[in-house]
Amino acid sequence: MEGLGFLGAGIGAGLAVIGAGLGIGNVAASAAEGVARQPEATADIRTTMIIAAALIEGVALFGEVICVLLALK
Amino acid sequence: MEGLGFLGAGIGAGLAVIGAGLGIGNVAASAAEGVARQPEATADIRTTMIIAAALIEGVALFGEVICVLLALK
Amino acid sequence: MEGLGFLGAGIGAGLAVIGAGLGIGNVAASAAEGVARQPEATADIRTTMIIAAALIEGVALFGEVICVLLALK
Amino acid sequence: MEGLGFLGAGIGAGLAVIGAGLGIGNVAASAAEGVARQPEATADIRTTMIIAAALIEGVALFGEVICVLLALK
Amino acid sequence: MEGLGFLGAGIGAGLAVIGAGLGIGNVAASAAEGVARQPEATADIRTTMIIAAALIEGVALFGEVICVLLALK
Repeated sequence: MEGLGFLGAGIGAGLAVIGAGLGIGNVAASAAEGVARQPEATADIRTTMIIAAALIEGVALFGEVICVLLALK
Repeated sequence: MEGLGFLGAGIGAGLAVIGAGLGIGNVAASAAEGVARQPEATADIRTTMIIAAALIEGVALFGEVICVLLALK
Repeated sequence: MEGLGFLGAGIGAGLAVIGAGLGIGNVAASAAEGVARQPEATADIRTTMIIAAALIEGVALFGEVICVLLALK
Repeated sequence: MEGLGFLGAGIGAGLAVIGAGLGIGNVAASAAEGVARQPEATADIRTTMIIAAALIEGVALFGEVICVLLALK
Repeated sequence: MEGLGFLGAGIGAGLAVIGAGLGIGNVAASAAEGVARQPEATADIRTTMIIAAALIEGVALFGEVICVLLALK
C-alpha cells in the first residue's frame, strides 16, 4: 500500500497551500486596508505583515518538504 | 495501488488553486478597495499586495510541482 | 487501478475552477465597487485587479495542465 | 498497512499549516489594523503579535516534526 | 492494522494545531486591538493574553505528545 503515501503527499500539498493562502491573505488584506487608511505608516504596517507572513511561510514550506519526501519515497 | 498517487496529484492540484485563489483574492480585494479610497496611495498598496501575493504564489507553485512529480511518476 | 488517475483529473479540474472563481470573483467584485465609488481611479483599480487575477490564473492553469496530464496518461 | 502512516503524515502536515495560517493570520491581521490606527504603539502591538505567533508556531512545528517522524519511518 | 495508529497520529497532530491556532489567534487578535486602543494598558492586556494562550498551549502540547506516542509505537 505504498500508494497511500503518494495520496497523502498530494492532499497534504494542497492543504498546505490553503493554509498559507488563508493566513497570508488575511494578514495582507488588513495590511492593504491599513496602508489605505494611514499611508504614512506604510513601513510599520508592511514590516508587521512580512514578519507574520514569514512565520506562516516557514510552516508551509516545512509542510511542503514533508510532502516532497513522501512523493519521492 | 500506484493509482492513488494520480488521485492525490489531481486533488492536490485543485486544492492548491483553491488556496491561491482565496488568498490572493482576499489580498487583492482589500487592495482594490484601498486604491478606491486613497488613489494617491496606489503605489504603496500595490507593493504591499504584490509582496504577499508572491509569498502565496511561491507556496502554491511548490505544491503544484509536487503534484507534477506525482502525476509523472 | 489506473482509473483513479482519471477520477483525480476530474475532481482536480473542478476544484481548480472553484479556486479561480472564488479568487478572481472576489477581486473583481471589490474592483467593480471601487470603480463605482471613485470613477476617476478606474485605471489604478483595474491594473491592481489584473495583476492579482493574472497570478491566480497562472496557478489555476498550472493545476489544469496537471489534470490534462492525468487525463491523457 | 504501513502506508497509512504516510497518508497521515501528508494530511497532518497540511492540517498543521492550515492551523498556523488561520491563527497567525488572524493575530497579524488585527496587529496590522492596530498599527494603522495607532502608529505610535507599533512596538507594543508587534511584540504582542510575536509572542502569540511564536506560541502557535511552536505547536505547528511540533506537529510537523511528528509528520516527519511518520514520513521517514 | 497497526497502520491506523500512524494515520491517527498524523491527523491528530494536524487537528491539534488547528485548535491551538484558532484559539490563540482569536485571543491575540483581540489583545492586539486592545493594545492599539489603550496603549497604556499594554502590560495588563499582554499578561491576560499570555495566561489564556498558555492554557491552550498546554492542551495542544499534551495532544501532540499523545500523537508522538502513537507515531513512535
